Amino acid sequence: MSEPQELKRPAFDPAEVNESNYTSYPALHRAANQTRYNRRLGDHAGLTNFGVTLTRIVPGGQSSYRHAHSRQDEFVFVLEGEVVMETNDGAQVLKAGICAGFPAGSGDAHRFVNRTDKEAKLLVIGDRTANDEISYPDVDMHAVLGPDGVYIFTTKTGEPL
Amino acid sequence: MSEPQELKRPAFDPAEVNESNYTSYPALHRAANQTRYNRRLGDHAGLTNFGVTLTRIVPGGQSSYRHAHSRQDEFVFVLEGEVVMETNDGAQVLKAGICAGFPAGSGDAHRFVNRTDKEAKLLVIGDRTANDEISYPDVDMHAVLGPDGVYIFTTKTGEPL
Repeated sequence: MSEPQELKRPAFDPAEVNESNYTSYPALHRAANQTRYNRRLGDHAGLTNFGVTLTRIVPGGQSSYRHAHSRQDEFVFVLEGEVVMETNDGAQVLKAGICAGFPAGSGDAHRFVNRTDKEAKLLVIGDRTANDEISYPDVDMHAVLGPDGVYIFTTKTGEPL
Repeated sequence: MSEPQELKRPAFDPAEVNESNYTSYPALHRAANQTRYNRRLGDHAGLTNFGVTLTRIVPGGQSSYRHAHSRQDEFVFVLEGEVVMETNDGAQVLKAGICAGFPAGSGDAHRFVNRTDKEAKLLVIGDRTANDEISYPDVDMHAVLGPDGVYIFTTKTGEPL
């Protein structure tokens, strides 16, 4: 997007941040979620109140399973390429420059899928409010945020996953 | 950035959000801060845990006076054009695609100035942590966040402004 340049902190090029397709999903649901690669820009900057993630979704990949947060807000800005946003109301194409926001507790479960043959990049922002829960309407999974900041995943009826 | 398209909420084009150069700065310091135009994307989406603002800075304009938050994190991503980021350590040019983060309490006072002849656009994210204070090293101003979510501005010694 820009020529290489010498940058001093606190400025940085997202390209210098480690990129990973790690997912904390349990093994059963892991594979489909490793088709997106995250750079945790907020963590890299030392932020703790919210996360800012640059998510690169490969063709055919998804940002996550469709999900809704109970207590955390989420905001997504399409930086590059185009994605299909799936919500409770259906699917629509979002091009670069378009955004979407999901207020905590709205119950509007969402994911972003790359149905093109080019990479897509999103900037994803979410806060770190305690006692958050994540509902996944399309898979038998549910997550509860523990006091250590780590989500515990179970089936919808609370069985270990 | 993209052709016009029909979008259904919760997706939207930032261009549809009201743009304003309003500033809550006291009259003495207001004029220099009206050279940037904000679209409050997070508010538009109904988010309350953090703000996401699309800031358009005209040539010669600034994002704000150089400032540092005591309790709120801040993150800036350059979407378009180029800005000079001024911090405690000096100035550097940030081009589109570059970002910077300012952890709460770091004391690293920052602003973004447009020294080009083209508009620059930033995505600015900040949380809403209570009891935040804002320090302004370059002007005789200080702000304290009230319980109603509104900052009260005074001089550095606490005189009304």
